Amino acid sequence: MTAPRAVTRPRPHPAGTRRREALRELLRAAAVDALLVTDLVNVRYLTGFTGSNAALVVHAGDSADAEDRTVLATDGRYTTQAAAESPDLRLLVERQCAPELLTLTTAGRVGFDSAQVTVDAHDVLAAAARGELVRAPGLVERLRAVKDAAEIDALRLACAAADAALAGAIADGVLAAGRTEREVAHELEERMVAAGATGPSFDTIVAAGANSAIPHHHPSDAPLAPGDLVTMDFGALVDGYHSDMTRTVLLGPAQDWQREIYALVDAAAAAGRAALRPGVPTSAIDAAARDVVVEAGYGEQFVHPVGHGVGLVIHEAPAMSASATATLEAGMTVTVEPGVYLPGRGGVRIEDLLVVTDSGAEPLTASTRDLVVLG
Amino acid sequence: MTAPRAVTRPRPHPAGTRRREALRELLRAAAVDALLVTDLVNVRYLTGFTGSNAALVVHAGDSADAEDRTVLATDGRYTTQAAAESPDLRLLVERQCAPELLTLTTAGRVGFDSAQVTVDAHDVLAAAARGELVRAPGLVERLRAVKDAAEIDALRLACAAADAALAGAIADGVLAAGRTEREVAHELEERMVAAGATGPSFDTIVAAGANSAIPHHHPSDAPLAPGDLVTMDFGALVDGYHSDMTRTVLLGPAQDWQREIYALVDAAAAAGRAALRPGVPTSAIDAAARDVVVEAGYGEQFVHPVGHGVGLVIHEAPAMSASATATLEAGMTVTVEPGVYLPGRGGVRIEDLLVVTDSGAEPLTASTRDLVVLG
Repeated sequence: MTAPRAVTRPRPHPAGTRRREALRELLRAAAVDALLVTDLVNVRYLTGFTGSNAALVVHAGDSADAEDRTVLATDGRYTTQAAAESPDLRLLVERQCAPELLTLTTAGRVGFDSAQVTVDAHDVLAAAARGELVRAPGLVERLRAVKDAAEIDALRLACAAADAALAGAIADGVLAAGRTEREVAHELEERMVAAGATGPSFDTIVAAGANSAIPHHHPSDAPLAPGDLVTMDFGALVDGYHSDMTRTVLLGPAQDWQREIYALVDAAAAAGRAALRPGVPTSAIDAAARDVVVEAGYGEQFVHPVGHGVGLVIHEAPAMSASATATLEAGMTVTVEPGVYLPGRGGVRIEDLLVVTDSGAEPLTASTRDLVVLG
Repeated sequence: MTAPRAVTRPRPHPAGTRRREALRELLRAAAVDALLVTDLVNVRYLTGFTGSNAALVVHAGDSADAEDRTVLATDGRYTTQAAAESPDLRLLVERQCAPELLTLTTAGRVGFDSAQVTVDAHDVLAAAARGELVRAPGLVERLRAVKDAAEIDALRLACAAADAALAGAIADGVLAAGRTEREVAHELEERMVAAGATGPSFDTIVAAGANSAIPHHHPSDAPLAPGDLVTMDFGALVDGYHSDMTRTVLLGPAQDWQREIYALVDAAAAAGRAALRPGVPTSAIDAAARDVVVEAGYGEQFVHPVGHGVGLVIHEAPAMSASATATLEAGMTVTVEPGVYLPGRGGVRIEDLLVVTDSGAEPLTASTRDLVVLG
């Protein structure tokens, strides 16, 4: 057979050129002559290459000349794939991608991601480098935090797949007494794929009854039972982009304490979402939601940050905790997911994924946040 | 609801105590008084804890006293889960697990995994450490390379789920002209779950026609066609253990060059498997398989190592490449997976997962290696 069947992607990564140009701005600011990119997600973001062994060198300076000197490295398993996914880049085929790239890099100051390169790997890079290796952590992550239109479209499709999966599961009676947490998780994952996802964006969490007090509970063979709070934290993967949503439903009969903490978490989530806008510190989003929970006396039961950035990785910049130092920008895609957990009784978490706009934020997840009481 | 529904796992990790004792032997050999364990898989292996944020300190010295000083750290999301999964260990609840653990560790020489800790993270650890931080890479990985009976049982179940999925897919006519690579991948993943897997052990590879010349092709919407070689590289996840198997089938009519490279890869795989036994360098396994391919004049088309260790991670110790320095031991579980790839035409890979025994090796994967010609 011949092309186009012969290749995974027939065209170069459309956004790669623009992203590498944006990165060069950051390289100048970081006073490095080139950046060694070793994180595979960052390589994918900058080149479109999706193999499991790769490194990339991006040079600062005049864009045309610098772009000519961009080199992608991978090993022999991926020669064909790299030519298909990144035909616009020079390719080096070597198993030891990063050190071999450095032996070919004549730049004086070469940045490396000290937040990603291990202590031992740094020794190997330092031995191979012709120039001076300098720390340059998180530069590509900073670019990735602000999504372009195509990325937001992919996230929108991923969120829609999760919304459709939950709506279908509810409509078809999947959330019923006697079904196990594992069965519900599998149903949600199946329905996301049926709705166009390539798969789940992380291990689906379904936590029923007292398990719902465990924020990251693994679905078990425990059956759902009348009176259970059922928390589902799940997402879909579309073109490498991750959606993330949590909804907690109730298998009747509802008890007052359940309605109370649901309404509290719902109000906290609303306060967090309402605070989203460019220029606001992410720590202020955490505070906006947390204050509502603390006011009600449940501060000790809100045991995690309010949210996180989402994109090519399920947890990425910006950080959204009380101690985070990031500031929101238009185009950032973040979750708002307060929760209250009462050990041995149950918990509620409500999570949406939103994109920060010029004036506020637009939810990408669309499932109702009204308390759904089933059965 | 109350226990057992309230907890993920009702009993302490059965093997944890024994594994921590075995680790203490390595700590003495490495001349460290304690080891900071930061890799989450290593934490799980040593404690049974499966949360997404954790660190562990294991002390050397007298086992009873040292065991008392073992501390597991995680954050507030996992307090309930940690108590359930690792009830036999002291628990520290802190978001910054590793540095907080170090501030409590009075040992003089504290080892850290320099192959896993990043350059920036090391700065934080060094600032927090009361004792001397010393490099101690790969100690837990060395233990993990040799599986115990329970681990081999889990891998056997995972391999059986993959065997059942392939057999069912063939019997039900899933591998037919017109079906897309993506559909076949989904069918295999579905059938593995139906056979008892919690999910696939990695992103399933289905590569048809010329795509089969791409060793790590992503399944596309390309339809299978008459005359295609169809390579399927997939595995199942059971209790955290990964299976890994590759089979290449042929949609008739078969062409001579296809039969030729299939027979060649089959012979190379057999040679690799036959060389497995304790005391043999893993590089000799690569050579045993590669020599067969080189002899036939296809050495340039066998573009990856012969295999790798498999367990809690899909690629783990021992390394199995020509340059690897590991030596086989009974209980190691490794793949043997030679391949020949003809760009633009197609490729063949045959991969089995085997456990090294006292006298040789036993395959855990059971699917036939005879050339299967369909349609």
